[in-house]
Amino acid sequence: MEKVNLADAFASFDEPWSPRIAAELNGQYVKLAKLEGPFVWHSHEDEDELFFVVKGHLTLRLRDRDIELDEGEFFVVPRGVEHLPIAEAECHVLLFEPASTLNTGETENERTVHDLKWL
Amino acid sequence: MEKVNLADAFASFDEPWSPRIAAELNGQYVKLAKLEGPFVWHSHEDEDELFFVVKGHLTLRLRDRDIELDEGEFFVVPRGVEHLPIAEAECHVLLFEPASTLNTGETENERTVHDLKWL
Repeated sequence: MEKVNLADAFASFDEPWSPRIAAELNGQYVKLAKLEGPFVWHSHEDEDELFFVVKGHLTLRLRDRDIELDEGEFFVVPRGVEHLPIAEAECHVLLFEPASTLNTGETENERTVHDLKWL
Repeated sequence: MEKVNLADAFASFDEPWSPRIAAELNGQYVKLAKLEGPFVWHSHEDEDELFFVVKGHLTLRLRDRDIELDEGEFFVVPRGVEHLPIAEAECHVLLFEPASTLNTGETENERTVHDLKWL
């Protein structure tokens, strides 16, 4: 394993809503994703999901409130909690979650990514 | 759960080598620690450990090489691999590891922290 430099890693891909795996540890993945625009409402039945904003601003819309994340802030969406990530402008996020987690959770649709790419 | 702002979180404690738990997810902890000086050689038999440098510079000395981490860089020390974290000057790191992980791994000594504090 080599170290990961976030700036270099984010410069290596462009596609929004297509997370790249940056590392695996203890059955969990560290993923990097570029977000732009609204995603889809979804939840993960058995998996907590951490969103850490590396660059830009992210709104995590929950059914009862919005979580507003700026650079250097993170939030853990507990398992079972519906959420809608919204990036008004391009936003770079680091995700921590189980290796089994699908990006759209229980809601499989055309945004679902089954074959995650490594960096 | 509320969001965590890293700058605010690091401003809330001073003690070096005394990680604070910032979040729990999927049986893993996100910990924040201030490091200064050399720690102790240790390894974690069954746990991979991620070091992400938020501020400053960290050397992760392994038996066969040094990993040099600047701000915005991370490295996963695989389970069983001996490592010695060294911070020449104060360094702020985010750790991601199983909730069961002891800071000194298999090497319990006076630096071992048994009762981890939450932020």
